[in-house]
Amino acid sequence: MSEFNQPISGNDLARFSGPGTYMRLPQATSLEGLDVAVLGVPMDIGTSWRSGTRFGPKQIRAESAMIRPYNMTTGAAPFDHLNIADIGDLAINTFNLPESLRIIEDSYDAILSAGVMPVAMGGDHSITLPILRAIARKHGPVSVIHVDAHADVNDEMFGEKETHGTVFRRAYEEGLLEADKVYQIGLRGTGYGPDDFKEPQGWGFQHFPASELWNRSLHNMGAEIRRDIGARPVYISYDIDSLDPAFAPGTGTPEIGGLTSMQALELIRAFKGLNVVGCDLVEVSPPYDPSGNTALVAANLIYELLCILPGRSSE
Amino acid sequence: MSEFNQPISGNDLARFSGPGTYMRLPQATSLEGLDVAVLGVPMDIGTSWRSGTRFGPKQIRAESAMIRPYNMTTGAAPFDHLNIADIGDLAINTFNLPESLRIIEDSYDAILSAGVMPVAMGGDHSITLPILRAIARKHGPVSVIHVDAHADVNDEMFGEKETHGTVFRRAYEEGLLEADKVYQIGLRGTGYGPDDFKEPQGWGFQHFPASELWNRSLHNMGAEIRRDIGARPVYISYDIDSLDPAFAPGTGTPEIGGLTSMQALELIRAFKGLNVVGCDLVEVSPPYDPSGNTALVAANLIYELLCILPGRSSE
Amino acid sequence: MSEFNQPISGNDLARFSGPGTYMRLPQATSLEGLDVAVLGVPMDIGTSWRSGTRFGPKQIRAESAMIRPYNMTTGAAPFDHLNIADIGDLAINTFNLPESLRIIEDSYDAILSAGVMPVAMGGDHSITLPILRAIARKHGPVSVIHVDAHADVNDEMFGEKETHGTVFRRAYEEGLLEADKVYQIGLRGTGYGPDDFKEPQGWGFQHFPASELWNRSLHNMGAEIRRDIGARPVYISYDIDSLDPAFAPGTGTPEIGGLTSMQALELIRAFKGLNVVGCDLVEVSPPYDPSGNTALVAANLIYELLCILPGRSSE
Amino acid sequence: MSEFNQPISGNDLARFSGPGTYMRLPQATSLEGLDVAVLGVPMDIGTSWRSGTRFGPKQIRAESAMIRPYNMTTGAAPFDHLNIADIGDLAINTFNLPESLRIIEDSYDAILSAGVMPVAMGGDHSITLPILRAIARKHGPVSVIHVDAHADVNDEMFGEKETHGTVFRRAYEEGLLEADKVYQIGLRGTGYGPDDFKEPQGWGFQHFPASELWNRSLHNMGAEIRRDIGARPVYISYDIDSLDPAFAPGTGTPEIGGLTSMQALELIRAFKGLNVVGCDLVEVSPPYDPSGNTALVAANLIYELLCILPGRSSE
Amino acid sequence: MSEFNQPISGNDLARFSGPGTYMRLPQATSLEGLDVAVLGVPMDIGTSWRSGTRFGPKQIRAESAMIRPYNMTTGAAPFDHLNIADIGDLAINTFNLPESLRIIEDSYDAILSAGVMPVAMGGDHSITLPILRAIARKHGPVSVIHVDAHADVNDEMFGEKETHGTVFRRAYEEGLLEADKVYQIGLRGTGYGPDDFKEPQGWGFQHFPASELWNRSLHNMGAEIRRDIGARPVYISYDIDSLDPAFAPGTGTPEIGGLTSMQALELIRAFKGLNVVGCDLVEVSPPYDPSGNTALVAANLIYELLCILPGRSSE
Amino acid sequence: MSEFNQPISGNDLARFSGPGTYMRLPQATSLEGLDVAVLGVPMDIGTSWRSGTRFGPKQIRAESAMIRPYNMTTGAAPFDHLNIADIGDLAINTFNLPESLRIIEDSYDAILSAGVMPVAMGGDHSITLPILRAIARKHGPVSVIHVDAHADVNDEMFGEKETHGTVFRRAYEEGLLEADKVYQIGLRGTGYGPDDFKEPQGWGFQHFPASELWNRSLHNMGAEIRRDIGARPVYISYDIDSLDPAFAPGTGTPEIGGLTSMQALELIRAFKGLNVVGCDLVEVSPPYDPSGNTALVAANLIYELLCILPGRSSE
Repeated sequence: MSEFNQPISGNDLARFSGPGTYMRLPQATSLEGLDVAVLGVPMDIGTSWRSGTRFGPKQIRAESAMIRPYNMTTGAAPFDHLNIADIGDLAINTFNLPESLRIIEDSYDAILSAGVMPVAMGGDHSITLPILRAIARKHGPVSVIHVDAHADVNDEMFGEKETHGTVFRRAYEEGLLEADKVYQIGLRGTGYGPDDFKEPQGWGFQHFPASELWNRSLHNMGAEIRRDIGARPVYISYDIDSLDPAFAPGTGTPEIGGLTSMQALELIRAFKGLNVVGCDLVEVSPPYDPSGNTALVAANLIYELLCILPGRSSE
Repeated sequence: MSEFNQPISGNDLARFSGPGTYMRLPQATSLEGLDVAVLGVPMDIGTSWRSGTRFGPKQIRAESAMIRPYNMTTGAAPFDHLNIADIGDLAINTFNLPESLRIIEDSYDAILSAGVMPVAMGGDHSITLPILRAIARKHGPVSVIHVDAHADVNDEMFGEKETHGTVFRRAYEEGLLEADKVYQIGLRGTGYGPDDFKEPQGWGFQHFPASELWNRSLHNMGAEIRRDIGARPVYISYDIDSLDPAFAPGTGTPEIGGLTSMQALELIRAFKGLNVVGCDLVEVSPPYDPSGNTALVAANLIYELLCILPGRSSE
Repeated sequence: MSEFNQPISGNDLARFSGPGTYMRLPQATSLEGLDVAVLGVPMDIGTSWRSGTRFGPKQIRAESAMIRPYNMTTGAAPFDHLNIADIGDLAINTFNLPESLRIIEDSYDAILSAGVMPVAMGGDHSITLPILRAIARKHGPVSVIHVDAHADVNDEMFGEKETHGTVFRRAYEEGLLEADKVYQIGLRGTGYGPDDFKEPQGWGFQHFPASELWNRSLHNMGAEIRRDIGARPVYISYDIDSLDPAFAPGTGTPEIGGLTSMQALELIRAFKGLNVVGCDLVEVSPPYDPSGNTALVAANLIYELLCILPGRSSE
Repeated sequence: MSEFNQPISGNDLARFSGPGTYMRLPQATSLEGLDVAVLGVPMDIGTSWRSGTRFGPKQIRAESAMIRPYNMTTGAAPFDHLNIADIGDLAINTFNLPESLRIIEDSYDAILSAGVMPVAMGGDHSITLPILRAIARKHGPVSVIHVDAHADVNDEMFGEKETHGTVFRRAYEEGLLEADKVYQIGLRGTGYGPDDFKEPQGWGFQHFPASELWNRSLHNMGAEIRRDIGARPVYISYDIDSLDPAFAPGTGTPEIGGLTSMQALELIRAFKGLNVVGCDLVEVSPPYDPSGNTALVAANLIYELLCILPGRSSE
Repeated sequence: MSEFNQPISGNDLARFSGPGTYMRLPQATSLEGLDVAVLGVPMDIGTSWRSGTRFGPKQIRAESAMIRPYNMTTGAAPFDHLNIADIGDLAINTFNLPESLRIIEDSYDAILSAGVMPVAMGGDHSITLPILRAIARKHGPVSVIHVDAHADVNDEMFGEKETHGTVFRRAYEEGLLEADKVYQIGLRGTGYGPDDFKEPQGWGFQHFPASELWNRSLHNMGAEIRRDIGARPVYISYDIDSLDPAFAPGTGTPEIGGLTSMQALELIRAFKGLNVVGCDLVEVSPPYDPSGNTALVAANLIYELLCILPGRSSE
Repeated sequence: MSEFNQPISGNDLARFSGPGTYMRLPQATSLEGLDVAVLGVPMDIGTSWRSGTRFGPKQIRAESAMIRPYNMTTGAAPFDHLNIADIGDLAINTFNLPESLRIIEDSYDAILSAGVMPVAMGGDHSITLPILRAIARKHGPVSVIHVDAHADVNDEMFGEKETHGTVFRRAYEEGLLEADKVYQIGLRGTGYGPDDFKEPQGWGFQHFPASELWNRSLHNMGAEIRRDIGARPVYISYDIDSLDPAFAPGTGTPEIGGLTSMQALELIRAFKGLNVVGCDLVEVSPPYDPSGNTALVAANLIYELLCILPGRSSE
């Protein structure tokens, strides 16, 4: 156990001190020996309403300083079983969306070929398309758990094919997904017409509208999804706007009537045992987060995702 | 369908662009041809604690820019069936409360006599008294659904008979209401004694304290109220402080333990089918809304109200 | 009744006016004739992450100006039965934690020996250890209801034995508690290992993790605790971080997945009838409370605590 | 000296503690024995753009807690020579502007007839008209030093004769002023035409536009005004919007290009020796003051005004 | 005079009411009959540090509601001499910087060919390159007054040739400027080496570093520049970050030690008489402007620019 | 040159990316080979009014990401001549002020004995006493340039001898200073009596009150001080509250009428050539800095201090 990276303890160095890495983990300069790489993709040029997600990774890291290594609720101890590091941010080109998506895809190819599990902190949701391209190149079409207020299945936005609102249509068209093992959870809000949701449902996508989840524990629903996926490789893409703005105001396109933090925790915990091959947490926009709550929630959800990652194969 | 006003689409003009009207609808300069008039009543001189609601209409309009025309949850498409415009703000006199109330009443007489349904964005709750006077002149005593943390049945405040805390006593005394078809939902907080609520109950008002609604869906309760009202003309007055401050902090007299946004949505959706003759959403105070959530919730609740308005008589 | 102190009525003086005392009660300069003393302990030098709780008492008082004397939900009327005053702040030494704890203990000895019930507004949680010392000196080992995200049972922090994270271990070691009548409610978050909670459970502490309370009314749980305690003297220590940050963001060590304001109200109301010998509400940090909600929640929870205090012995 | 009221020392009680009075002075319940009464007039119903000044007195008092008794720059020691207390707020009627102005006038009659010098914390500028009425009743027409971005000489606003924009025209018409000893300092911004300023100049008002004061010390200009006034009774009305919004953002009608805090200090200090008969500091609006700077500046300017008040006649 | 557009008067409609246009001018749907078009270019995808300028035009318009038509300091009355309207925002493509620059250029060609003077509210500074292309196509190489903390003469950023940091190098290379009549005012901060400024100086650009302007009136310097330019057509590009962050915090790349608002006003006023052919005010980022000051300054600087525009040729 | 540490260039990695070190310099884990160590001392337990400075180092580092290596105004290029690294934070004990001061002193002994120049980011001003103890142990009594609103020469506060308000009396008593070469610049505000300043003047301290510096360049004054110090070793202690709160609101004890950012820059630049042996920048309190300006100013002042440090002895 002791050979793995550990967060700096709050008893060794005051939490307001220390490196600006996720959970004050070591910053790795090489992928060598890592099981999991936490990384930032600081980008907001794929957003259509409020910007600011370029500062998401920085703020999530800042709020993560208070998280301790052991999960008091589930008993998970991710740093006992996995060697995890923060590998910093991808060096995207902030003036050029297509170029940035290409950089992300290339970087993911490198991470995946090193046998390291990528856990991304966004950035806007447009980062997930190049990620899925690299994931599918490695693992073939994957199951996807997509927690979000929006289905992100537009065909184009202002004539552009690759933005934060078109990700899952592109991924479907490109065959990156097992379409009938795609779960879109937390959908709500307004759209342009009934087809907005019907078309992806026609592809096989399974929809879990937020309004059907209110006032409920998500434990059972999560367990059913877990059983439905079975041993398939699965990618989890978590848009923070799946949460209600009372719980996560700092995001670009907030929609009322969303999930609670409690439901977000239940959901992730129910996924323990899945063959997760990567995950992301996107759309945290610090300039719209006066209380800091959104980044705090995001930092904790990433921690909960770390808690359900499969152990080393030798374990 | 195409002959009705439509919000500007986010695919035609970026959402951070365009007119500052509600949902970027056309601003009408005449009532001619309209079914529904969305209007602002920017006023805060009737408030007793925090002010700022004079900026409510502006901020609600700003946050409404993200709403699309089709309701993904209920399937409602209000702009397909009703000709809706933003008719701007009433030109109240910000130094003189009685004069402002008179202006509101006169303006409502004009709107109602043109056969247009008024949907008001407050402003503080004192606007509802002159509105009800005009409504009753047109429709006779009406049923009222009043969603609020407070019953607003004081006799006077600092000797004044017409403020944001005396509305429903005045309306009762003036015979503007069918008293046993008045539903006060979300009541809570502190008062001066047990009579604060007992007296209006004696008039026939039906009370639904917030503490009896916690952790519950409001769908069934809303449906019961709908059945109890039947075909009567009903006015809906929605005070944003009915919501818990976690969901709507930006208001003048917040009370903890309120409704959730989810409950607010359930409630309005359950009222589909009522013979609504007008509605308002009041007490949004932007200076106390650092995250912008309150105006966002308000903009969405107004949209949901539009979604349950009765169609054109010819439909 | 009329011989007791009353809050200034909002009908006599606008709520944005008047003294900065809790609920605009008289500020007492003597303990003579009081049943209950509301007091501030403005301190943050016992905190490990964010500071700012030194301004907690000021802000709680500011937000309390809107509370009226009668509890519309429970029918409690504390100012009819108890003579309550704000006695101001304890004059702590802001540069010296041990000295400040000593000042608190001495002050509590004086308050308790005058037969007055102390209700403290923190300040960070380190204030509760000297309070419990004084309480135990007067009442013997007491039952404790401790509502908090954290168990606060560290042995030491940076080598210090008395901080906001070590309170209940010290209190246990010093025999200030009836260990099997200690109820820690709302626990969650992360820790250093399974022993963080197992050890206090071994002492007899009863744990009610937040994750077991989600989506539930706490009425029944509260009632069970009440029955379990029976007639024992009980101290209630309420850390505002027991609430979810959506409801109470302004605190030093927020943890997601906490209680709602509604649950907080249910819990306190269920404790009506207990032999409460003192209580505190701690860890409100105004610099992290942009909406003011946290202090508003705190002011109301203190009011609800006043509503359940036992009446005068002659009653 | 020791018989006079003193602020609580920061060495006796931490500055974040203690009463919410101005400079933590005693709150007087009687005018008996006072030389100077600091009082609040919490009102914003006379404002035309942003509201919020109803919370001005509370916030000025909060920020004043850091001020110590001795003026290190000028050597003034006001609490050695004058008996000063905070007498709380006037109980205005927040729903009724004319009624509130009448209450202010009556209250000032009482204060002045007790031989006490009034120093008011606003509130919006409409409070100055009733104050001047009472002042003139006592002292006859007075010289006025009016520091403000705006001349406040409108004839009416929305048909109202008494608002925050009409004060000095009304005062002129009613003969409350010695018109050629009125000094309007800091004027700037935009208007409706050249007559906005020419007409008051025709009455004798002397204008000191902000643009002529930039990059200058105001010491000499202040000294000239002092000589011009001589021994006449003079009232000082200080609108915080005379300062540039960089120095005082929290106000209702900010205008760029204003005075600096340094100039504001120079100006008041230059008035030492005047026969001041009263003064006010108005238009601090805390909801628009995220840094708290505006109230801090206001608290200090009031202190500087106290430092130039004439001593007791026996001195 | 009366035939020209006028802002809505604050005496006709409360300033917190009315359309969201610049100064509440009419929104024009045609260029016909206009002398000056105020327009928004809501964009932030050309920024390298903080984003958010996409909301600049909205916020500048919001704060402009308080500006009245007559300039009390200079006597200018722009709405008496010019027909000015707000023509709304350019419909840029928020996902694609090059495409957006093309849209801007095309739109400017249309405005200029209609003989209308364009006054742009940014948006980030990258908008000025396509503007200058259109301006040069119409007027030939122009003199440019460029007020900014930065020279914006990078060759490329992340390999991109057209961003907010490369504008004036591109404009120079493309011959859009009269290089020795380019005035860069307010430069400061840090760079990569001495060549950062020496190279543009070699082209003929004249530099006015902020550090040489501290504590000075800019009247004379502005007058010298005006004489140096003479009758040449001149474009004014005003980056709000030329001001010190104390005066304008809400911008993407703030640099300390900048101009004051007073200097900004002096500078523009000194340019009266120039043959201005267009101007812009860029880089206002509302998410970083908690006090609203930055947009207020920007709204006023645009007004001052309107005040110095040449009159109709017939005048 | 190339062998020295360099900040990451904004052209290599977007500025919102990268390590959270000062100016994105390498974080050194050893003092070996360093000329200058930038370090954080995250502490606020020595403060008497607002806390929050424990987050100062983090926020200064965050805002420093925008600073480039070359000083465009002075031509300084510190990274060409000195090997500079961020060595992280000192591991203070946040519950214990005396213990923390001891840790600081020990750490400084180690830094100084390694021949490295320390540049500290506070933290509250109490850190400067242990720093001066270590400095004097190494260099003997030093000249001190102390830029601050307050003289910090109290004898004790609440009985404590070592707090943020007693530093320079202790340093004088302990002989750490050359008392007649101590320059206190920017003093202002209020005190307890004339002795507050007279006593330190009696020791030889030279006072430069803020009110004598208004509207002036500080270049000449700085040059005179430089000449007066000559070749003596000098320590520079820069309290951010020396600046006016318009320029630096985010601090614990703000005083109006302070220096401008421009004066702060002039002052430091005038000190070029001094034999600086260490410096600090203290009292940045991020929770009170809504615009981020204060940390931005601080980050730049530290950079300007780096620009005047003496070069390597071999140079």
